[in-house]
Amino acid sequence: MEKRVVGVLGAGQLGRMFVEAASRLNVTVRLLDVGDTAPAKQINYAPSTSSKGQSEHIDGSFADPAKIKELASKVDILTIEIEHVDATQLQSVLDQGLVDGVHPLPSTIALIQDKYAQKKHLSEKGLPVAEYMAVGPEDLSSLKDAETNSKDQALGVSKAAEAFGLPLMLKSRTQAYDGKGNFVVRSQQDTQQAIQALGGGSRGLYAEKWAKFVKEVAVMVVRSSSGEVRAYPAVETVHKDSICHTVFAPLRVADAGVERRAREIAEEAVATFGGAGVFGVELFLMADGQLLINEIAPRPHNSGHYTIEACETSQYENHLRAVLGLPLGSTALKVPSAAMINILGLADSDKDGEAVAKTLAPAVASLSVPGATAHLYGKAGCRKGRKMGHITIVGQSDAQVRQRLETVERALDQATELATKGGALPASLTAEGVVASSSSVSSPSAPSSSATPKSAADFSHPQPLVGIIMGSDSDLPVMLPAAEILKKFNVPFELSIVSAHRTPDRMREYARNAPARGLRAIIAGAGGAAHLPGMVAAQTALPVIGVPVKGSVLDGVDSLHSIVQMPRGIPVASVAINNSTNAALLAIRILGSADPSYLEAMQKYMDEMENEVMGKVDRLGELGWDYVLKK
Amino acid sequence: MEKRVVGVLGAGQLGRMFVEAASRLNVTVRLLDVGDTAPAKQINYAPSTSSKGQSEHIDGSFADPAKIKELASKVDILTIEIEHVDATQLQSVLDQGLVDGVHPLPSTIALIQDKYAQKKHLSEKGLPVAEYMAVGPEDLSSLKDAETNSKDQALGVSKAAEAFGLPLMLKSRTQAYDGKGNFVVRSQQDTQQAIQALGGGSRGLYAEKWAKFVKEVAVMVVRSSSGEVRAYPAVETVHKDSICHTVFAPLRVADAGVERRAREIAEEAVATFGGAGVFGVELFLMADGQLLINEIAPRPHNSGHYTIEACETSQYENHLRAVLGLPLGSTALKVPSAAMINILGLADSDKDGEAVAKTLAPAVASLSVPGATAHLYGKAGCRKGRKMGHITIVGQSDAQVRQRLETVERALDQATELATKGGALPASLTAEGVVASSSSVSSPSAPSSSATPKSAADFSHPQPLVGIIMGSDSDLPVMLPAAEILKKFNVPFELSIVSAHRTPDRMREYARNAPARGLRAIIAGAGGAAHLPGMVAAQTALPVIGVPVKGSVLDGVDSLHSIVQMPRGIPVASVAINNSTNAALLAIRILGSADPSYLEAMQKYMDEMENEVMGKVDRLGELGWDYVLKK
Repeated sequence: MEKRVVGVLGAGQLGRMFVEAASRLNVTVRLLDVGDTAPAKQINYAPSTSSKGQSEHIDGSFADPAKIKELASKVDILTIEIEHVDATQLQSVLDQGLVDGVHPLPSTIALIQDKYAQKKHLSEKGLPVAEYMAVGPEDLSSLKDAETNSKDQALGVSKAAEAFGLPLMLKSRTQAYDGKGNFVVRSQQDTQQAIQALGGGSRGLYAEKWAKFVKEVAVMVVRSSSGEVRAYPAVETVHKDSICHTVFAPLRVADAGVERRAREIAEEAVATFGGAGVFGVELFLMADGQLLINEIAPRPHNSGHYTIEACETSQYENHLRAVLGLPLGSTALKVPSAAMINILGLADSDKDGEAVAKTLAPAVASLSVPGATAHLYGKAGCRKGRKMGHITIVGQSDAQVRQRLETVERALDQATELATKGGALPASLTAEGVVASSSSVSSPSAPSSSATPKSAADFSHPQPLVGIIMGSDSDLPVMLPAAEILKKFNVPFELSIVSAHRTPDRMREYARNAPARGLRAIIAGAGGAAHLPGMVAAQTALPVIGVPVKGSVLDGVDSLHSIVQMPRGIPVASVAINNSTNAALLAIRILGSADPSYLEAMQKYMDEMENEVMGKVDRLGELGWDYVLKK
Repeated sequence: MEKRVVGVLGAGQLGRMFVEAASRLNVTVRLLDVGDTAPAKQINYAPSTSSKGQSEHIDGSFADPAKIKELASKVDILTIEIEHVDATQLQSVLDQGLVDGVHPLPSTIALIQDKYAQKKHLSEKGLPVAEYMAVGPEDLSSLKDAETNSKDQALGVSKAAEAFGLPLMLKSRTQAYDGKGNFVVRSQQDTQQAIQALGGGSRGLYAEKWAKFVKEVAVMVVRSSSGEVRAYPAVETVHKDSICHTVFAPLRVADAGVERRAREIAEEAVATFGGAGVFGVELFLMADGQLLINEIAPRPHNSGHYTIEACETSQYENHLRAVLGLPLGSTALKVPSAAMINILGLADSDKDGEAVAKTLAPAVASLSVPGATAHLYGKAGCRKGRKMGHITIVGQSDAQVRQRLETVERALDQATELATKGGALPASLTAEGVVASSSSVSSPSAPSSSATPKSAADFSHPQPLVGIIMGSDSDLPVMLPAAEILKKFNVPFELSIVSAHRTPDRMREYARNAPARGLRAIIAGAGGAAHLPGMVAAQTALPVIGVPVKGSVLDGVDSLHSIVQMPRGIPVASVAINNSTNAALLAIRILGSADPSYLEAMQKYMDEMENEVMGKVDRLGELGWDYVLKK
């Protein structure tokens, strides 16, 4: 739809997914990277109109000023898929009017390239970052010879250790990614080794106070050139060996405010930059609920791959829209839950392509997993740790997504083991093997695929959809049938004691955090002055089902009236006295209201119930009206 | 992941979306179509390794036997994106062992090419089709000169008119698509004109009894080479001028069994064919609930475009998996609701590309619509009615999807008007105009974006999520606050009279069909021997909320006990006597359990309620404890 041509520095996997989005909107893209079979170039046929056999893409390095200029001469707008580019040259082609725009701004790219400058910028804007200080000269242009710098830096490390304590994180200011350029200084004795590992005095360094985080969080934010910012949902990222391994969307934490705060901080941070495009904001969630920005990438990011399958607009299409000045797309999740797992090179390339085949084998296993989509980047060569592809998994609940992910993770583990020990691919990692075994894979619509706890006791599922609570363990005999029904339907649930009168704070916390933890309904049982269901309903927006428990006096009518006669504004769904079975069935109907697999399971349950009674009808016909007496 | 190369006959939009799926799995595709910039070729760079500047794709017609053979020599598996290919040559390259497989089987393609043979095959297999008969000789090889055939055909039409009555549908047996090759014979006088329009005696014809359908339905089915079939959800297709205009997924009909039956018939039909791949089954839904197969396409289909954004595996990836013998992917919807609308060429191409620009302008308007994804096919030339692109819209409910679709439909109407009357593109159809007005587009998470009825009265939304029912209009005063709350939250709902005791059949029908109609919760009010909520709950798997209505005696306790004391197995969610406000709030909490926008809206409502009471606290502090008396 756009006649303007977009040029991209870099044609790796991020460029490839960007090209995919651009093709769908008929936007012409020209790419700068080495070779003519870089991942993004493979899916973008760009024949030269003037010279037969030539491509309009540029063959060269995205760090080469001449090549950047050559690309600029062919396009209207420049953007990047990697920040390790020549920002000075980008500024120069912009100043010379060779292009209408560079997004993000070259000055933003330069700022982000220097991680110390980035930190300083953010903290000056009032954004939360871990404590940090320059190690050696703050101004990179005052760097001297490596030996002098090394001495300065050693002094700096010791100052930092004094200020922040040990361990501390020593980081290279530039050329750092995927954990490269970081060194953990655990004692002063590590100093020389650390400086040596980080360029031996040839590069600028800085130190950061050790952030003992409980989770790593990431937020993708798209920024229009007019300054509008839209955050995607906050996600949890799990790193292994400093490389992104898994991403879970949305972020689940006990504190309901964290997700919102993460998005707000990310939007505020991205609003401080000029230019348009997508930015990836990585944060640390500390034990006290504080969020610290770790670093920002000025481009689509690994932690945003999931948006292709899981959000209303992918990060790639939103990046395209932003750099072209088109309206930004919705960043909302369109599915209830998603995960992403990277496929990393298992070994360096060999002649016969075995390393690539072994690396990509887990993608074959993913074909039998409902909701899984494999993205392979078309990289011909492999090296250990190289990003070769990823798999996104979507589902109706966190529990379902985690269960689906297990198959893929098992395949990844198997492939890793294989790469270490050697040997041929086992059947489970070949297409034939997967075909042979795929008949045993449970149907995507069966409720059994939604759940079954992994390791924890079955009344304490790590990703519960329903919570059963009661004021005291004396209510357990009445409430257990609810647990049994949920188990029968494979609903992930948790069961616990929460007392309105004896643990009001716990009740408040439980109710307020329930939605952020992924719960979709709460069943609360209570007897006598049965306040629990109503007081929980007063502190959560989720549906609360109340089970009146019959006490030793008043036949349960006291509990029933306490639970059902709620004031206007705060509803409780009451079921019959002592009938926790129906409470669980109602919770499943609530789940089934939006998830067809539970709706189907409930219909099946009702059909079976009808058949059972019809069986009794037949028996009565056969044995006579008094068969019960005859038994 | 697959080393086998797939060849495709045709490189239009279907081939393009197929290539997209293949690239993600690193599967090499070679395409046969005219030119080197056909839509699918644009996104598949295939440089020849032997001859510089050459592409490995084939430049030529997919109906040309020599070109088919040339393609076959380069690939391992052949498939098609269009059925008007040379099936004999496909059989021949298979017989010669030039490829490992052709999918679907050439014999299946040949069978489907002849629509009369297709009908005969289906009816012989016991599948439901409209009555039909050959017009002229049944065996196409007995066709003679055009004049003789015409005479035979005129005789045949008159026989058909006798058997089926008028009007009847006269159809060309071959080379028919998008309504081309059909002629409605309304009276015997139309016969000559009809035969003339359908080849003037040069082609075989057949007649079909007029199918007075109430809806057109389509089901995509993927078939593995081992015969496993998996249907996608049944969808409603809306045709304009015999060309697919809009698709709605899933199909909504009052009869809960139709959707399932459509899938079953489609799976049965596809199971009768050999070979692997995706098939599009088009059906007519008749007034009596009967389903008739209209025709079958042996390939991905326009009515399955929506699967890219809305299903766990797209029809294109499943087609790829099927032809390669890989495990089939899940066909389940991953979003609650979706729609697809085609962008058709508005005029024949002009020199300055105005026709293309005007045709594609509605895609620009779609950028401001949350949940919309535009797919433009990269066709340089335009002609009236040519498929140039499509827009898919996903959302949390049918109501939300229809509302989002309205903006796109308005833009399409505007563009059509413009093409007829001439003139420049209005601001609403240009990127600049959309940017300028996009700030007024409501946030995707606001509940207001989910609803607001279109034309019907607000208590009878055409795509309701909540149904309010009561036994008599005397219950209206008690039940109206529920309607007001739903309106306040912009929940699409319907309100009606359903009496358990006076209209038991209506109640049964209402309850059983509620899920198929898209309802997610039912609020039922009843007084006295209040059976309605429980009897509805006994006949639907949805959550049912009961409102006990206070009668003139017993203070409503009779209704409360009738509603709440349900037997084990069938739950009703009871609220307080006469408290329909809470019933509606509970229904919204049920919606919010899966749809974050309603959860947020409920939290906001609760926060406002708290603020309101805090205001009263302040007032009491200012005015004294007896301010109420002083008023």
